[in-house]
Amino acid sequence: MTATNGLAQQIAEAYAQAWTSGDVDKAMSYLADDIVCDAPAGRVEGVAAYRPFTQEFVDVLTSATITKVLADDTSAAIVYSFDTQWVKDFRCMEYLTVEDGKIKHILTVFDRLPAAEAARHAQR
Amino acid sequence: MTATNGLAQQIAEAYAQAWTSGDVDKAMSYLADDIVCDAPAGRVEGVAAYRPFTQEFVDVLTSATITKVLADDTSAAIVYSFDTQWVKDFRCMEYLTVEDGKIKHILTVFDRLPAAEAARHAQR
Repeated sequence: MTATNGLAQQIAEAYAQAWTSGDVDKAMSYLADDIVCDAPAGRVEGVAAYRPFTQEFVDVLTSATITKVLADDTSAAIVYSFDTQWVKDFRCMEYLTVEDGKIKHILTVFDRLPAAEAARHAQR
Repeated sequence: MTATNGLAQQIAEAYAQAWTSGDVDKAMSYLADDIVCDAPAGRVEGVAAYRPFTQEFVDVLTSATITKVLADDTSAAIVYSFDTQWVKDFRCMEYLTVEDGKIKHILTVFDRLPAAEAARHAQR
């Protein structure tokens, strides 16, 4: 048997619930001020930069599902599926680490190809 | 406190360890014969189809790091970082579910854009 205190799980669930329901302010409250996010297009540092990054994502969502949250004492993985106007069942995963009750680092993985192809077609 | 029997964790770790070290046969031994993998480019069904899909990936790796495995009783998330000849610190996450001691479903998330861009440049 392995056990966890459940803190990272609770924080990850609350963060995911907040931003997928459009409450970006509440989502930001779970992050350390010096949050570092390694996203597919590069690194985003600090809450001030991370807020518009998240808002942009929220703005294109038509629905969001939190498929799963898995965690140990200090880190969590979140599995999402999103629908946007252009893409259905768009999958994203985040791996985050928690320190002193705040999210310090987020690794965000998703496929940029569908959006890049849509943009190329739109240019024609 | 939450607890898990550790089985999904063990299976996920063994699977990840096997394929990232190039032992595709051993990796396949952890999968149900009717494995379903939802990958960025589409669905792959059955071990016979999944084996070459995995081998293709193994063939381009110069190194692989298993950053983290998180699990509950029936599912696990695996966080990877890969180096290939063209891309460094290429991140991938898998979310897998376990039934009767075998991996039944794998959701694989990674960014196809770097490879697509490399292929476009190679064509010029």
